[in-house]
Amino acid sequence: MKNRNIKLTIQYDGTRYRGWQRLGDSDNTIQGKIENVLSRMTEEKIELVGSGRTDSGVHALCQVAHFKTACLLRTAEMLDYCYRYLPEDIVVVRVETADGRFHARYNVKSKTYQYRIWNAPLHDVFERKYEWHVPELLDMGRMQEAALLFVGRHDFQSFTTLKTKKKSTERELFSIELIKEGSRISMNFRADGFLYNMVRIIAGTLVEVGSGKLDKNALADIFARRERSLAGITAPPHGLFLTRVEY
Amino acid sequence: MKNRNIKLTIQYDGTRYRGWQRLGDSDNTIQGKIENVLSRMTEEKIELVGSGRTDSGVHALCQVAHFKTACLLRTAEMLDYCYRYLPEDIVVVRVETADGRFHARYNVKSKTYQYRIWNAPLHDVFERKYEWHVPELLDMGRMQEAALLFVGRHDFQSFTTLKTKKKSTERELFSIELIKEGSRISMNFRADGFLYNMVRIIAGTLVEVGSGKLDKNALADIFARRERSLAGITAPPHGLFLTRVEY
Repeated sequence: MKNRNIKLTIQYDGTRYRGWQRLGDSDNTIQGKIENVLSRMTEEKIELVGSGRTDSGVHALCQVAHFKTACLLRTAEMLDYCYRYLPEDIVVVRVETADGRFHARYNVKSKTYQYRIWNAPLHDVFERKYEWHVPELLDMGRMQEAALLFVGRHDFQSFTTLKTKKKSTERELFSIELIKEGSRISMNFRADGFLYNMVRIIAGTLVEVGSGKLDKNALADIFARRERSLAGITAPPHGLFLTRVEY
Repeated sequence: MKNRNIKLTIQYDGTRYRGWQRLGDSDNTIQGKIENVLSRMTEEKIELVGSGRTDSGVHALCQVAHFKTACLLRTAEMLDYCYRYLPEDIVVVRVETADGRFHARYNVKSKTYQYRIWNAPLHDVFERKYEWHVPELLDMGRMQEAALLFVGRHDFQSFTTLKTKKKSTERELFSIELIKEGSRISMNFRADGFLYNMVRIIAGTLVEVGSGKLDKNALADIFARRERSLAGITAPPHGLFLTRVEY
């Protein structure tokens, strides 16, 4: 009987992968790679439940996941096994025994994503895979003001590319933090949950406000009309990091 | 007549390249890639003179080079041309018109290299291509003390893999700075010049002192005996950055 509940904290560089979620038996996804290693380790068929999916090309500083097992290995041995057999762009950084009722997705209280931009005429050679290069100078004051309009409980229908329209598109955005250090802009988004592509569309919208392409006064109307096409572009995946999951 | 002297400042990620120095006509070197673009731009055969070579896999935050040309393009146009046609891991960040007597190699007053280490049991996913992962905890105090013994004018014969023994192996190391922030150790070496592999061998030697494998009291003897095999290992190239060239 699989009566142990194991919690993993995972760091990954999403560049080479088709996102978190397993797509088939021998696919190139992060969940797939880890499940294969865990299944070999435990000699069981392991199903890994993540806190949520990340898209193709999106990174994680600390994704959280859990799985049930009957395997008796100590958590330190599990960590070593994962470190030895996972590719170098996926690292399980912590293995813990969790309460039997712990569920990596259902128990999420908040999640934080960071979106990174390199705002200078030329891109940075060493950050090119982890930052969106925006050459036109962005007005941080305008972006800051626009960001405030997203904070709070809202219907984010205009800021998602959801496939179904049946589920609720309301979410509570607890905070957006914008930081500029040299040419690097970091935007931290903390919410009770995020819709599909939501962070990337908000990031793209803020950039359009910062470059003067979109007026912040248009945002109230964009929210009200509940239509994706009115919001800004979807920022590319390589600037996005899942940075924290709170339970 | 090639009467313009153009100075370039160049940033590159050395991961994919066989080092700075051109090896043949269609090789995978940084000098080769840039010369090809400059030759097309100027419609001349361009010879680019760098401040020095960097090895295969070594990076640069600011390599400096010069070339002579009769081309009348403005420096801003040259910058744009290079940015458009160079691969994304090589960026010419500055183009300047230099004095006719400026020589990127002969006029060097000092160079600074940075060597980066990730000192933690598990490597960092996002820095894995730019830091040497050393799992055993290093004693920074011991490394600091050992570093002082390298500063000053010395015969560095034991810390190079030179091919010829005819040239002088004396260099003046102006400073070594060791900084630890979290798990990241940065070592900055500033000197009037460096011998082949010298930074990597000193970095490897300091790591052996930090891990307790080598006693700092052995260093005076290692210097005196002028034999490469007595010093520490050659640290891997991917942790090394050319960070500054002063004229």
